[in-house]
This record gives sequence, C-alpha cells and structure tokens, in this order.
Amino acid sequence: MDSEKRSFLVLHGPNLNLLGNREVEIYGNLSLEELNGLLHTEAEKLGVIVECYQSNSEGDLLDRIHGAVGNYQGIIINPGAFSHYSIALRDALAGVDIPAVEVHLSNIYAREEFRHRSVIAPVVQGQICGFGPLSYYLALRALVNYCDR
Amino acid sequence: MDSEKRSFLVLHGPNLNLLGNREVEIYGNLSLEELNGLLHTEAEKLGVIVECYQSNSEGDLLDRIHGAVGNYQGIIINPGAFSHYSIALRDALAGVDIPAVEVHLSNIYAREEFRHRSVIAPVVQGQICGFGPLSYYLALRALVNYCDR
Amino acid sequence: MDSEKRSFLVLHGPNLNLLGNREVEIYGNLSLEELNGLLHTEAEKLGVIVECYQSNSEGDLLDRIHGAVGNYQGIIINPGAFSHYSIALRDALAGVDIPAVEVHLSNIYAREEFRHRSVIAPVVQGQICGFGPLSYYLALRALVNYCDR
Amino acid sequence: MDSEKRSFLVLHGPNLNLLGNREVEIYGNLSLEELNGLLHTEAEKLGVIVECYQSNSEGDLLDRIHGAVGNYQGIIINPGAFSHYSIALRDALAGVDIPAVEVHLSNIYAREEFRHRSVIAPVVQGQICGFGPLSYYLALRALVNYCDR
Amino acid sequence: MDSEKRSFLVLHGPNLNLLGNREVEIYGNLSLEELNGLLHTEAEKLGVIVECYQSNSEGDLLDRIHGAVGNYQGIIINPGAFSHYSIALRDALAGVDIPAVEVHLSNIYAREEFRHRSVIAPVVQGQICGFGPLSYYLALRALVNYCDR
Amino acid sequence: MDSEKRSFLVLHGPNLNLLGNREVEIYGNLSLEELNGLLHTEAEKLGVIVECYQSNSEGDLLDRIHGAVGNYQGIIINPGAFSHYSIALRDALAGVDIPAVEVHLSNIYAREEFRHRSVIAPVVQGQICGFGPLSYYLALRALVNYCDR
Amino acid sequence: MDSEKRSFLVLHGPNLNLLGNREVEIYGNLSLEELNGLLHTEAEKLGVIVECYQSNSEGDLLDRIHGAVGNYQGIIINPGAFSHYSIALRDALAGVDIPAVEVHLSNIYAREEFRHRSVIAPVVQGQICGFGPLSYYLALRALVNYCDR
Amino acid sequence: MDSEKRSFLVLHGPNLNLLGNREVEIYGNLSLEELNGLLHTEAEKLGVIVECYQSNSEGDLLDRIHGAVGNYQGIIINPGAFSHYSIALRDALAGVDIPAVEVHLSNIYAREEFRHRSVIAPVVQGQICGFGPLSYYLALRALVNYCDR
Amino acid sequence: MDSEKRSFLVLHGPNLNLLGNREVEIYGNLSLEELNGLLHTEAEKLGVIVECYQSNSEGDLLDRIHGAVGNYQGIIINPGAFSHYSIALRDALAGVDIPAVEVHLSNIYAREEFRHRSVIAPVVQGQICGFGPLSYYLALRALVNYCDR
Amino acid sequence: MDSEKRSFLVLHGPNLNLLGNREVEIYGNLSLEELNGLLHTEAEKLGVIVECYQSNSEGDLLDRIHGAVGNYQGIIINPGAFSHYSIALRDALAGVDIPAVEVHLSNIYAREEFRHRSVIAPVVQGQICGFGPLSYYLALRALVNYCDR
Amino acid sequence: MDSEKRSFLVLHGPNLNLLGNREVEIYGNLSLEELNGLLHTEAEKLGVIVECYQSNSEGDLLDRIHGAVGNYQGIIINPGAFSHYSIALRDALAGVDIPAVEVHLSNIYAREEFRHRSVIAPVVQGQICGFGPLSYYLALRALVNYCDR
Amino acid sequence: MDSEKRSFLVLHGPNLNLLGNREVEIYGNLSLEELNGLLHTEAEKLGVIVECYQSNSEGDLLDRIHGAVGNYQGIIINPGAFSHYSIALRDALAGVDIPAVEVHLSNIYAREEFRHRSVIAPVVQGQICGFGPLSYYLALRALVNYCDR
Repeated sequence: MDSEKRSFLVLHGPNLNLLGNREVEIYGNLSLEELNGLLHTEAEKLGVIVECYQSNSEGDLLDRIHGAVGNYQGIIINPGAFSHYSIALRDALAGVDIPAVEVHLSNIYAREEFRHRSVIAPVVQGQICGFGPLSYYLALRALVNYCDR
Repeated sequence: MDSEKRSFLVLHGPNLNLLGNREVEIYGNLSLEELNGLLHTEAEKLGVIVECYQSNSEGDLLDRIHGAVGNYQGIIINPGAFSHYSIALRDALAGVDIPAVEVHLSNIYAREEFRHRSVIAPVVQGQICGFGPLSYYLALRALVNYCDR
Repeated sequence: MDSEKRSFLVLHGPNLNLLGNREVEIYGNLSLEELNGLLHTEAEKLGVIVECYQSNSEGDLLDRIHGAVGNYQGIIINPGAFSHYSIALRDALAGVDIPAVEVHLSNIYAREEFRHRSVIAPVVQGQICGFGPLSYYLALRALVNYCDR
Repeated sequence: MDSEKRSFLVLHGPNLNLLGNREVEIYGNLSLEELNGLLHTEAEKLGVIVECYQSNSEGDLLDRIHGAVGNYQGIIINPGAFSHYSIALRDALAGVDIPAVEVHLSNIYAREEFRHRSVIAPVVQGQICGFGPLSYYLALRALVNYCDR
Repeated sequence: MDSEKRSFLVLHGPNLNLLGNREVEIYGNLSLEELNGLLHTEAEKLGVIVECYQSNSEGDLLDRIHGAVGNYQGIIINPGAFSHYSIALRDALAGVDIPAVEVHLSNIYAREEFRHRSVIAPVVQGQICGFGPLSYYLALRALVNYCDR
Repeated sequence: MDSEKRSFLVLHGPNLNLLGNREVEIYGNLSLEELNGLLHTEAEKLGVIVECYQSNSEGDLLDRIHGAVGNYQGIIINPGAFSHYSIALRDALAGVDIPAVEVHLSNIYAREEFRHRSVIAPVVQGQICGFGPLSYYLALRALVNYCDR
Repeated sequence: MDSEKRSFLVLHGPNLNLLGNREVEIYGNLSLEELNGLLHTEAEKLGVIVECYQSNSEGDLLDRIHGAVGNYQGIIINPGAFSHYSIALRDALAGVDIPAVEVHLSNIYAREEFRHRSVIAPVVQGQICGFGPLSYYLALRALVNYCDR
Repeated sequence: MDSEKRSFLVLHGPNLNLLGNREVEIYGNLSLEELNGLLHTEAEKLGVIVECYQSNSEGDLLDRIHGAVGNYQGIIINPGAFSHYSIALRDALAGVDIPAVEVHLSNIYAREEFRHRSVIAPVVQGQICGFGPLSYYLALRALVNYCDR
Repeated sequence: MDSEKRSFLVLHGPNLNLLGNREVEIYGNLSLEELNGLLHTEAEKLGVIVECYQSNSEGDLLDRIHGAVGNYQGIIINPGAFSHYSIALRDALAGVDIPAVEVHLSNIYAREEFRHRSVIAPVVQGQICGFGPLSYYLALRALVNYCDR
Repeated sequence: MDSEKRSFLVLHGPNLNLLGNREVEIYGNLSLEELNGLLHTEAEKLGVIVECYQSNSEGDLLDRIHGAVGNYQGIIINPGAFSHYSIALRDALAGVDIPAVEVHLSNIYAREEFRHRSVIAPVVQGQICGFGPLSYYLALRALVNYCDR
Repeated sequence: MDSEKRSFLVLHGPNLNLLGNREVEIYGNLSLEELNGLLHTEAEKLGVIVECYQSNSEGDLLDRIHGAVGNYQGIIINPGAFSHYSIALRDALAGVDIPAVEVHLSNIYAREEFRHRSVIAPVVQGQICGFGPLSYYLALRALVNYCDR
Repeated sequence: MDSEKRSFLVLHGPNLNLLGNREVEIYGNLSLEELNGLLHTEAEKLGVIVECYQSNSEGDLLDRIHGAVGNYQGIIINPGAFSHYSIALRDALAGVDIPAVEVHLSNIYAREEFRHRSVIAPVVQGQICGFGPLSYYLALRALVNYCDR
C-alpha cells in the first residue's frame, strides 16, 4: 500500500454482491466489481486509495470496522438492509474514531416506510442517498474534503 | 444430483438445530435430522429433490440464497427468529428470482405479539404456519404446484 | 352423507362469491363453483368429504360454525375481509372444539397494511396463504393429517 | 304481555347461544335457556317483565333495538364480541331513547388487551362485568332503580 | 323499469331507518321515506332512475352491491357506522366495476375521532359529507356527470 | 363487631370526601356521609356489615387493604382517580386473598379518554360503573352472592 | 359587483396554479384559468357571483378569509397541501362567521396516508372530494342551498 | 445569462439568511453570501451556472419552484425547517418536471427526533446531509452528472 | 389573619423542599424558605395574604386543596413531578370552586419528553413556567387580577 | 425611539388581527389595537418600550425576529396556530440571541388535543398562557426581570 | 450508630410488607423481617451498616430519601409498583447526591408489559432484578464497591 | 478443565472487543483481556471456573449457547447491541436449559431510548446493569447462588 496516500475503506453490506443482477430498476445494472473498479479510478483522481469489501455478515462488517483503526483515514459504508436495524453496526462506527459516510444507491426515503429510518445515520458524518454509484463518488469527495480540513 | 429432477433448497434458520430438544411443547420432538429425512422421503414421492441446510448465521443464509440462483427451482425457508427483523433476508429473497415459501412449525400468530409480524412474508409466494413438520411438506407441494404451472 | 368418512366444513367469507369475476389479478379467474368442485375432487382423493358454504353475513358464518359441532371433524375457513375485524368469528372458532385452518387465496402480507393482521389466526391450528386455490387443498391435507394423529 | 308492568329487553350478542358449552372456565356452565329462565324469575321478583333474545347477527340486534322504541322501558345488552368493534350497535343504542345497561359474564378487563375497549360503553347508562349470570340480575336492578327515579 | 334511463342504486346503511327520529340535531328531521321521495324527484329532474334500499345488515348490503352488476350504472352509499370498520363493504365496492360515491348527512370530521376514518373512501370515486340530504343530491349529480363523460 | 355476620370493607378513594359538593352534575348531590349511611342500611337488609373508609392518600388505602386480611370477607373499592395510574393499589388488591369489586359513580367510559383505562380492573372480580350510589349497592349484592357460592 | 346577487369567494391553495400542467393523471388537464371560467359560468346559472383567488402563501389566504367578512356569503376552499397541516387556515375559517365548503379535485383518501387527514374539515360545513372540477360545482350548489335555508 | 450553459436554481429555506451568525456550532460560520459566492465558483468549475435565492416564506419558495420550469435544468434545495412539515413544498417539487436534490448543512439524523423525517425527501432524486457547505457542492455534481446521462 | 384582605394558598409539591440544594442549574439556589419569604413580601405589595405549604405527599396536597374552600380566594400550585401523573390532584382542583394557577420554576417544555405533559393544566386558569421564582410572583398578579374582575 | 430605554418586540401571530371579533368566548372582546394600546401603557409603567407587530405570514414573522437582533432586548410572541407546527419559527427564535417569552390568551391545555403541544416552547425562556391580555403583561414583567438580572 | 462504618439506607416500596404472604410464586416466602435480618447479617460481613425502612406511602419514601443526605453513603431501593409511575421518586433520587441502586425481587421484564418500564432506572447507578433476596445483597456489594473507588 | 468445579460460560457480544479503547466515558478503560483476567480471579475466589468468549457475530454466539448444553452450569451474557433486536439470541437462551444472567457495563436505562428495551431480559434469570466490570462479578455470585439452591 502506498503509505504516502490516504486510504479509505469502502464497506458494502448485505446483498450488494447481487448488484447488477438484482432489482435493476432500483439498483442499476452495474456489477459490484464494476462499481469497485470505478471507485478505484475515482479515488486515484482524488489522490487517495480505496479498499473495497463486501459481506453479507454483520459480524464480518464489525470486524472490518474494528480493524480499520490505524489503517484507514475514513470509511464509506453502504449498510444495505442493516441500515434499518443493526445497532451493532452503529455502535461499531461510533466506537472507532474514524470519519464515516453512509451511502445508498437508491433514495431510501422514496421506498417502503421501514427503509426511511437508518440507525446508522446518527453516528456518521453525513448521509448521501439516491444517486446510484455517484453516491459513492460523492462520499469519496466528502471524506477527502473532511481530511483536508 | 439428478439433473432431470427439480431441486428445492430448504433453509432452516437460527436455533432450528435444537429441534426436538428445545421447547418441545412448541416445536415437537422430531430432531432436525429426522425432519430432513422425512423431507427427502416426501420430496421423492413428489418427484423432486430437496437439499436441506441449517444455519444460525444470517450471513450464511444470505450466501445460500444468493447461491441458489441457477441451482434450485424453489426455496422453502423457515426463518425462525429472523422472520421478525432480518430485512437483509427479505432483500435476499426479493433479490433472487426464485419462488419461495415461508414456513413455521408453530402458529406464530398464537404466540408473543412480536412474533406476529414477519418481514419476510411480503416477498415470498405464500406462508404456511402452525402444522409442525407438515408445514414443510405442504410447502413442498406448493412449490411443485407452482413449477407445474 | 357417507357416515364412514370424515367430513370437513369449508367456509368462504364475504365477497368470495365474486371469485373469478372480481380483481382477477389478485384472486385468479376460477369461479367459486369451480373451486368448490375441485375441492370435492381433491377431498375424494384424500378419502374425506367436504361441504362448502359461502356467506356475506357474519351471523350466518357464526351459525354454521356453531352448527358444525358433532357434524364435522374439521373446518377450513377463508374469512375474507372478516379476518381483520370479526372478533365474533374468532370467538366462534375458539368456542367450538373443532380443529380449524385459516386460508387465503392471496398473500395477505404482500397487500395493504390493514390486511396484515388476522384476528382469526391466533385461534386456529394454522394459516396458509398466498397459493390461490392450492391454499385450500393444502388445508385439506393439514386437516386430514391432524385427524390421523 | 302484562301491560301494567315495565318490560325490559335482554339482548344476548354473538356466540352467547353457546353458553354452557363453550369455554366454561370463562363463561360458566349455565346454558342460555337456563340463564333466560333465571332472568324471568328474577324479573318477576322485581315486578317487571323481561323478554330475551339472542342473535349472532349484528343486523338483527340493530333491528331489535330499533323495535324496542315504545315497547320496552329499558335494555340490557351483552354485546359479546361486538362490544369491541360494532359502532353500528353503539349508534343504534345512542339513537333510541331507552336507558340501557351493558353486561358481561366475564371480567373483560382481565382478558386479552383487545377486549378492554368497549365501543358500546360510552352510550349506555353503565356497565357491569365479571359476575357471571349475576351481572344480568344486577343490571335488572339498575334498570328498575333507574325507572323508579 | 325504464330501460332507456340510467339507474343508480342508493344504499343506506345501519340505523338510517331511524332518520328523522334519531339525534335530529345531527341528522335532521327528514324521515328516510321522505328522503327517498326527494331523491326520486331529484333523479327525475336529472333524467335518471334511483332505487333506494336500507339495511342494518352488512351481509345484505354486500348482496345488494354484488347484485348491482349489470343492473345499475352507479352506486350512492351512505355506509353509516360501517364506514369505520367494514372492510367487507370496501372489498365489495372494489370488487364490482361500478362507479360509487360515498355520502354522509353529517360532517363526520367534525364529530368523534373514530368517525374521521372511512375504510370505504379509498375505493369510491369521491366522498361528499356534511350537507344533510343535499349530500345525496350532489352525489346524484356527480354520478350523472361521471356517466356523461 | 357482630362476629356472626360477614363484614365487607368499603374504600372510597381520593376526592370522594367532596361528594355532594363537587361537580354534582357528574357525581350527584348525596354527601359521603349520606352514602355511607345508605350503605349500612342496604347491608343490614342483606345481613352483612360494612365498614366505610375514605382517604386521599394512596398509602393509607394500601394499609387498609393489607389490614383487611382476616377481618373482611370482601372489599368494595371506588379508586377514584387512582383507577387510572395506581399500580400500587392494583398490587395490593392482587396481593391479599379477598374478593373485591371496583365501583364508579359515573360511567367512566363516557368521560375523558384517560378515564377509560383502569389499572385496577384486571385484578378484581368485576367492575360496576355509571349508576351513582346504586353502583355500591349492586357491588354489595355481588359480594354477598360471591360468598354464598 | 352586482350587489343584488350573492357572492362567494373561491380560494385555491398552494400549487393549484400548476393545474393542467402538473401531475395530470391526478388533477386532470384543465388549467386554473379554465376552471375559474367554468366556475363563473356555473355560478351565473345558479344566480350567484364567484370571485376566484389562488395563492401559494398561507398568509395571503388568511388575509383573504379575514377580508371576506361582510363581502361574501360563502367560501369554497381547496386548501391543497395546507389541508394537512395549516392550523392557521383552520383557525381563520373558524374565526369568521361565513359558511365554507372544503373541496379537493382528487380523492385524498385514495392517495398517500398523510393526505387522509384534513385539519380544515372539522370547521367547515362539509367536504367534497374526488370529482375533479365537479367538486367545485357541487360546492357551489351546496352553498347556494345553504343560503336559501 | 449564458444560454449555452446549464443553469441550476439553488434555494435556501427559512433562517438560512442567519448563516454564519446563528448556532455556528451546528451550521458553521460561513455567511450565506460567502456560501453563494463559493457555489458560483464551484459551478463555474463544472461549467454550469447557479442562481441562488433565499426566502423565509414558504409561498415565495413555491413561486420560485414553479418559475423554474423552462428556466433551470435542476434544483438544489435546502428546505431548512420546512423539510419537516411543508407538504406544499413537496407538492411543488413533485409538480414540476425538474430533477432536484435536497441538501442539509448539518446531519439532521444526529439532531432532535423531529428533524429525522423529511417530507421533501421522497420526491427528490436524492438527499445529501451533514457536510456543511460541501453538501451543496456535492449536490451540484450530482445534478451535473444527472444531466449528463 | 387579616380578614379584610384576600388570601391565596401557595402549594409546593414533591421535592420542592430540596430547593436551593438540588439540581441548582435547573431550579436555582434560592431555598424554599427564602422563596416563601419573598412571596410574602410580594403579596404584601399587592395587598394580599399568601399562605405557603409544601408536601411530598399527594394525599396531603389533596387535603389542603379541599380545606381551601371558604378560606382562600385563589390557589397557586407548583405540582412538581405530580404534574405528569396525579389525576387525583387534577380532580381535587377541578372539584373545588377556587381559581388556580399552575407554576413551574423551570421551563418544563425544554426538559425530558415526559415533563411536557401536565395533567393539571387543563383544569386551572392558566400556566406559567420557566421564570424561576418569578413564575410565582406572576401567578400572584394573575390571581389578584382575576379576583379584581 | 428612546435609546435609553429597553425595547421589546411584541409579535402577534396568525388570526390575532381578528381579536375582539372572533370566538370572543375564547379570546375575549378586546381588539388587537386596544390590546396594543394597553401594552404600551403597561410598558411605560415598567419603564420600557414595546413595539407591536401582527402578521398572518410565517415568513414575515421570521423576518421580524431576524431583524430584532441589535434592536430589541426581548421578544414576546403569541405564535397562535403556528405554535403547533412552525418549526421555522422555533428555529428563528433559537437562532437569534434574544430572550423570548411565549404567551397565549387562552389556556391551550384546556382546548383541543392538537393545541397541547407547542414546538416553540422548548426554545423560549418560559411560557404564560390562559390569562387573556394579562398573559402579555406578565410576559413584559418577566422580560424586564430577566434583563435586570 | 457506628460512626466509623459506612451506612446504607434500604428502602422497600409499596406492598413489600406483604412479603412472604403475597404471591409467593413471584416473590418467594421470606418475610420482610427475615429479609431485613439477612440484610443486616450480609452488611456486617461487608463491614457496613444498613438501615431498612418500608412504606406504602410515596410521600414517606420521599421524606426518607431527603433525610438521607449527610446520614447515608448509599441507597438501595426496591420501588415496587412506584417504579412504573412515580416521577416524584425519580426526582427525589436525582435531587440528593447519594449513589443509589434499584433492585427488584422478580425479573420485571418477564412479567406484564407495564412492568417493563422503570421511571427510576435512569437516575440510579444501576439496576439489579430477578434474583429474589439476592438482588439486595448484590446491590449492597455494588454500593460498597462504589464507595471504595 | 477441573471437572469437580462448576463451569460458567461468559459471553461478550458485539463491539466488546473494543473495551478500553472505545467510548471510555461510557464503558471504562479496562480492556476485555483485563476484564476476563479479573473474572477468572473472581471465579476462583468463588470456587468456580469461567470460560470467556467474545464475538461480533450473532451466529457464533448462538453456536456457543447451543454448545453450552452439558458443558456449563450457567451463562453470563453481555449481549451488547444485540440486546435490543436479536430475537434469535433470545430464542437460543430460552431453548437451552441453563440458567443465564444478562449484564451490562453501563446503565442502559440512562442512555438513548432504543437501549431501554432488551429482548433478552424476559428469558434470563435476572439482569444486572450499570456497575461496569462489577456487573459481571455480581452475575457470577448470582449464578453460584442459584446453583447452590
């Protein structure tokens, strides 16, 4: 890893491995690999490094967040369905001292009532939702900007 | 695997490995192995194959559902306690294009208030609950019938 | 009536007489007469007798349930809209000592919020919903199985 | 009918015809006929006439209440399960100018949550519950007392 | 019946037979017969026929609605207390393909909280309330207008 | 005290000392002393003894209920405002093994919403409300009847 | 202004200036100007004058309602989105002594949950919704009828 | 205005004129003028034009949104406190056919409960909150990106 | 007592004896004795007499309110924590015919959610909160003013 | 303006211009002009200046509050109906560093349920309600007292 | 009292004097005197003194808590039924600067819904419930440990 | 393992591996290793063995609980964030026949609202919270005591 550059951890939550195949009218038809590829490109433009990780397991995501301490200067997380009930994820993000941004591909406020509440949102720097892959790019910029301050 | 026959994936959620030992007045005293054995027998009668899998891990169940694409023509799922909060499980089932049936051994509507709501039910073909192991056999028939259409 | 055979009472609640004509995208295009015909056929295969009755009147359904004591060994009931508010129907089913199964043609959990709660479900053996006419056939099997125990 | 004496209408709501056979641990083992007999005896002691009527049909009960105008000086009603949702019954009782008393055999406040609210109670003179058949006798006295004022 | 003219079915729900005698400060002192008479007159002016029917029975009203198919070009319904809980009535109106208008003599939104919600309203063309008998006349015009389109 | 006779404790809760002076349109104009006098007369007719006690203090009422063990065969309690929140009073009544009846002068279900719920009702034999002083007399009869069984 | 004739004020609330251009599947494609023109025609037929005013500002609508005292014999108001939260509008209508009718082009009860409650409805004579422009014409008749009494 | 370039309308809602002076620990100490200046700079970089407008009046904001039709290719709106109750604003945005992005300087989900619900969010493309002025820049990019598609 | 002068009863509810020692950042550091002294001074200026009483016992406060009839022309009450649940206190104030004012030292609406509701407020003349000891002085003036009318 | 004296801004919210004409049983028959006159007299006695302003427009009130910075030492606000939903007003008051007092002529807690909650109250010094015009005078004293500290 | 040793106040709330006689399946059959005896023994082992006090009166408990200042180094309180509504008790504990522990004999979370919420718990050091008399011993240790820090 | 001694399983839920590093003002600065060390020491004093296990995975914790059958005589569990939603964890503990105690380092009732409800609490022997590491020691004593009975 290029130690001179800032590194950000990108966490994709449950079911995001289905990206591009699943409910494309909601999530678009970009695959997760393609999304990650684009994120690397975008990161490079901004002079930072991103490491991307997807898991369907709440425990794995917690482990990754814990392991981020000292290794990453920021976290971008799309918690997927965990947004709505994983208080453990919330506590993990609140427990590590790393700025984080919550992203969603879709506009969660334009979907079912139960998707309108994120238990994660109160402990992150900010939330970006509704812009498809762009939600991630914007989060990248937000983190870079945050670190520049 | 007999490629001529239809295959269904039977997923048992958390704590169902305790079957036969745990709260037998609610769940009966058939063990999970015995239940699976009976399901194979029943499936054979109907000319289909079932593969049974139990896990206490939400992430594992998600992985199995994702992995079912192209391999199974139907899913029978007893989500156990996950019925009441695992939106991730709901999203997984909604995300793969495989007909699914939710089953419960007990009548969840005759138990504690918090068991009356299944977050899974809105995304499956139908729900069968309250008939003990028979709930699974009926689900098998429902899937066979669905595929015959 | 064939006194050697078990008899089950099949009760169709309000508006089910419209079957096949009404909202066919939800309820299918089988008429109630056709459904009852198929139920007789199915029952015959299982060696039991079914008697089918439809009413739009809550009071009539109560009378039928009361009258079932000593005449039927099981009840299959599709309470239709009464599922959601007829506590009288619930009390009738709880008050007679006959095993009963609640069925729905559609998956009530995939429809409007107010259809997600059945006041009937807590007092029956089990509930089967979402499989169209098959919901009834499966209920038949569940009752036969119950009586065989 | 003895035109010199006051007449009261006693209305028994849905499922009360099952009295003595149904859930005897809750409702006791007196049959409805026996209860009515005792009510006539009790009424005679108090110098009044009672006419008793049971129906499982909300519409019948409404008709009876409407028909009571000019014929009865008081109404005793055990609305059974209708207590909890029949606003039509409430409106009927509010619409006729006859003093009424709501009775329940069981203590509805010691049972399921949904039985704790009576939509009838706000429009009657008073409510008596929990004393078995005695609930009716006490209601008789309450009506006699009311008419004596 | 004059086969050239359009026919509308006017349904009066529970307790409306008491009209003119009951709670006149809310419902006015016109009797139901007088109201029906005026409706016929009003209909004649508009070149249509109305047939009026009142019932205290939910089941009867359902039967009438079902029977309206092919016989009436529109339905005017004052569901009375059924407005607030009869999902069966709602389903009946949704199930037949006839334009319907919900009317109320009183302004239900200026009365008790529980009268503010109509389960019928979402399935009709529109709702008119608060104008006494005029509510019905306006509904007549609305239906005529609807059929003219 | 006449040891041959049954003794009942009559407890009047907070503000009932104002009886006859306070909100007479709701509670009537009989004073508490007069009410107690009438209760003694009524008791005498029934061959029992009543002892009456009023307190504005929740603690005093608890002490009286505790002290009733071994001294009274029944309790009549008008918990007044305590009905709606004093779980301590509920626990006291549940904790002593003495049949109790809850009474109210007014029909609490015809008053403000917050008076519709009694936390006491679930632990007594029954509840009588809305009949003014007669509520107490009927309670007396209920207790006598209960002891006679 | 023709001083001999009755005058009614027609108030169109926020976003109604978009009429005919906005969400035509809900609101139809008549423009506000066309609607107002038709209202004048309709008024003329009924022998009354209407003055129409649209504003996106809650304050302006309040000023208009206040200014109506002494100048108009009735108010027709389509409060648009203000229906659901403008208690100020409610208070203005309740504060002036002019009969008012609330209208909606669409059936608000068939739309999103938050549109089912009107804070305006409890203080007007009545409400008419769901008939498109006809809602206004019917309101005109209702006001004329009201004034004729 | 440079007709070759895309133009976006930036709307600042109530109290945002206080920016830099008010609750700086929440909103930062940049003034609104400075923010607008930076937005112009940022827009220039992206090859677009922004026009900024602040108002404390709901009606003014509605007028601006209506006036945007045909003049702007996108809207960035910080609805401030209106986010939580102005259904009129929601309807305005839904009524014009222009892509819109909702922004907030602060993370509204980390503040008081009543700020967690935006009635605007369901009708915009997406929402960005918590990044201070950067929230606006990111929204700019989101709109540019949207128009490029 | 100076019989020429008006007398007001000042009631301090539970925990107000701790004043000056307890949570001084909320309640200030004036002791209850000092507060009472200042109230006497303030009363003298206004030509009235105040009698102050503090109790931690709900029953004692009720007794004092009952005892105020005929002895005081007004009541100032700081119900402390009783504000939020003592319906008995509410009934006592509603039961005596004496004008009363509710006061609070702190702004109860700026504190925990459960302190936002006073069950006392609906039955007093008015409420004053948030001004420390001044809340009481203002209440004194309000009562004097009320009696002068 | 007398620069030696303290100046307070008195803001009257929507519909208060109707004072004296509207619902006089609730708000009294003093006109707004008379109330303002009395406030000036009262202010003079206290050695302060008041400037009074009424508006039916939320935006105008916000502008006035913003404009108060540096010009007034205190604000008295009767937010009228805005009390119950204008979070914008709340934010304005929280955003300027000027002590404020909320007043109401009527006792809002003795009226409709929806008037019991003020979204303004949590951000002002205190609240005074129920004393008619006196509510304002008391608020004046409270502000003078606050400034003297 | 041994001035060298630490002293703790043990407060038993309402109905705890019934201990050993009341609902023994929930509370055990140890009497309060026996429990207090055991607490003294246990305290001695830990080198501290306990003083035990039971009251059915909320006011008495408040007085005791107030009186504890300067006399006790810790408070153990079993608030009994007061746990669920006595905000006065909460305020008393919050108002004195003494570490306190809330104890319950039974597991309140395994009982009726209304026992799941303690208004006391947020202001004490910690809560121990479900261990019978052991709950108190553990609380003793917790206080000793707290004081040792 | 010392087969003569009792063994208890100590389960630490999600994020507890961060102990000592995370939010030390809430959880203290003892690391998990240190806590486990102290627990072993404490256990030794009590003559029992403890085995400690931490996991961020719900599934792992379920596996451990299932595996405890026959191996441990008691379970101490700090479910962390899982307390508030893991019904699977609740079912696991209810499904194995081993006494269990729920512990929390912090007083969960003094924190955010969503932490006040534990879905675990109803199925364990008791709950201890708020005492930091001492919560665990007290739980150890509770289990020893339980086994001694």
